[in-house]
Amino acid sequence: MAVKYELIKVCKQSGARLGRVHTPHGIIETPTFMPVGTQATVKTMSPEELKSMEAQIILSNTYHLFIRPGHEIVRQAGGLHKFMNWDRPILTDSGGFQVFSLANMRKITEEGVTFRSHLNGDKLFISPEVAMEIQNALGSDIMMAFDECPPYPAEYDYVKQSLERTTRWAERCLKAHARPHDQALFAIVQGGMYADLRKMSAEQLTSMDFPGFAIGGLSVGESKPLMYDMLDHTVPLLPAGKPRYLMGVGSPDALIEGSIRGIDMFDCVLPTRIARNGTTMTSEGRLVIRNAKFADDFGPLDPACDCYTCRNYSRAYIRHLIKADETFGIRLTTYHNLHFLLQLMKDVRQAIMDDRLLDFRDEFFARYGLNDNERGF
Amino acid sequence: MAVKYELIKVCKQSGARLGRVHTPHGIIETPTFMPVGTQATVKTMSPEELKSMEAQIILSNTYHLFIRPGHEIVRQAGGLHKFMNWDRPILTDSGGFQVFSLANMRKITEEGVTFRSHLNGDKLFISPEVAMEIQNALGSDIMMAFDECPPYPAEYDYVKQSLERTTRWAERCLKAHARPHDQALFAIVQGGMYADLRKMSAEQLTSMDFPGFAIGGLSVGESKPLMYDMLDHTVPLLPAGKPRYLMGVGSPDALIEGSIRGIDMFDCVLPTRIARNGTTMTSEGRLVIRNAKFADDFGPLDPACDCYTCRNYSRAYIRHLIKADETFGIRLTTYHNLHFLLQLMKDVRQAIMDDRLLDFRDEFFARYGLNDNERGF
Repeated sequence: MAVKYELIKVCKQSGARLGRVHTPHGIIETPTFMPVGTQATVKTMSPEELKSMEAQIILSNTYHLFIRPGHEIVRQAGGLHKFMNWDRPILTDSGGFQVFSLANMRKITEEGVTFRSHLNGDKLFISPEVAMEIQNALGSDIMMAFDECPPYPAEYDYVKQSLERTTRWAERCLKAHARPHDQALFAIVQGGMYADLRKMSAEQLTSMDFPGFAIGGLSVGESKPLMYDMLDHTVPLLPAGKPRYLMGVGSPDALIEGSIRGIDMFDCVLPTRIARNGTTMTSEGRLVIRNAKFADDFGPLDPACDCYTCRNYSRAYIRHLIKADETFGIRLTTYHNLHFLLQLMKDVRQAIMDDRLLDFRDEFFARYGLNDNERGF
Repeated sequence: MAVKYELIKVCKQSGARLGRVHTPHGIIETPTFMPVGTQATVKTMSPEELKSMEAQIILSNTYHLFIRPGHEIVRQAGGLHKFMNWDRPILTDSGGFQVFSLANMRKITEEGVTFRSHLNGDKLFISPEVAMEIQNALGSDIMMAFDECPPYPAEYDYVKQSLERTTRWAERCLKAHARPHDQALFAIVQGGMYADLRKMSAEQLTSMDFPGFAIGGLSVGESKPLMYDMLDHTVPLLPAGKPRYLMGVGSPDALIEGSIRGIDMFDCVLPTRIARNGTTMTSEGRLVIRNAKFADDFGPLDPACDCYTCRNYSRAYIRHLIKADETFGIRLTTYHNLHFLLQLMKDVRQAIMDDRLLDFRDEFFARYGLNDNERGF
């Protein structure tokens, strides 16, 4: 099997898991956050910078690479690792979520999804078999089964039919997967906001031989308590010996709450996306660097941070660059935000090791300044 | 004196000079090319990247920093070196060229120039004294005297009056300059495309005690032979013991031809600007990476180059990034283009050392594929 999960310990205070995911391109310490490199690049960052901030694994998007430059180009390049000069693990998503959120004029049948490219209107088709072919060409360490991600809110009957199709598609993905020896295929639990459907999906998928499981269809507009409730209903149904990945979640509070609920892997565009606007995550909460009060503030972005950005540049300089539309400013905020979340996960792992993740959560929130309301409680 | 020129040797074949410019922030081997960091950043690059490509000195723009963030902010930051985290030499231009090329509604009097900011329409004023105040606040190693850069073409009488004013302004700059002990002030020879006016300007300015001289008002639309003719008339009038800087010139052919004519320093936005479009300079001439034929070309941008970009990334990958509007693609082309010109100048210095710069020129052009017509002959 291409990927193996090793459980190191369970936090006595919170139940969170400390573990290691062994992949063909190295070991990932979990819980972990995966920076998103949609188009075979984590926006504005070099591979060396990602390594210097200790990114262990990155995520790339099947839908985007299918459309441009095309998976055959990446295959010819020797796979995605070689194409983008990244020799650590890569996870590729299934393309499912993007087909439903980005593409135009999509038509879903049992066979697959027909849609038009959001770039040029080309008529395209992705089925479970095509999603496997693309991801086999990309050569990611962890591939995702092609799923349907229902909108939120959605009717019970629609979500039920959809998750059953996702199960049938997952089965087809397993069969079509051509490189199980060096690429792991994870299935995606769906079921919307219905606890019994989450259970149904989890039971159907865990009856098949996947080396890992993701939870999809969350963080799609629902409240955080509802998301955590769905995790509480779903995670216990997943096998303890395999990694668990919560898709599309990357706010600091949700990373901690997800870890407490037994999640091992997270990804989100949040840190890189807000960085491009000049919004940064600091130990004292969000900081919008465009704010006029930072014009003559010569201190670092986050006095508690020791990243490249905070060691070398002032708020005044970063504000100047962002206001002047200078790329280097976005590089600096992106670097800091990614470093912030990677450091947070390192702290989470240490807190699990020390059996004090609930205490860590309370301390972090007190400093980060999120009140219960902002956290959705 | 803040800056001293050390002549190492003159090329027996071409007459080009090999030298060193000693500055408060280190030594510059000349002839040299200065990457342009208009807004206190060389677009898309980090200081560490500039060092890794062996940039010795960068240029920054007085006009832009005056408008944003304002020189008082930079002064409070401890000067431009500290503000932007660059500890090697910096040259700042005078603001003159930008006032004439970028600003709106400018009005020139003997006192100075009134204009409106191209950013927000604010009414502003720069005189020789203000230009010195700004550059003293920025703390650059080499400052430029505030000059008037006449348009091309321009009438003889206008150019004559203009250069005489530039001389008077240069005198006022010398007087207003508050930090001659640690910042060198260079004067700018004007005179348009009139050989006798170039001579007049050079004679007037060299009669004053400037530690270096620039040649301005060239590369403004005239043919290259005309530019070289003006150099032939001007450079011999400049003192041999001081550095000579040709402003705004950065095409590979002009860097070599300028060196042959005794120029020590060059700057230009060309390499960084064309990089943002995906146009690169290679040992075999210009290469437009967007071209469809590079979609499945897995070789390096320039097989003869050993820069970070060429060692690690393929044409196919760079093309993908540029077409997908990914910043990292522009970082890669920018890095390569700057490295290309810095390496070219290193080769020029070696050729001077070996008394064979004319041979080097012929070899370079044969490979680079510029015919006489493209070079303007």
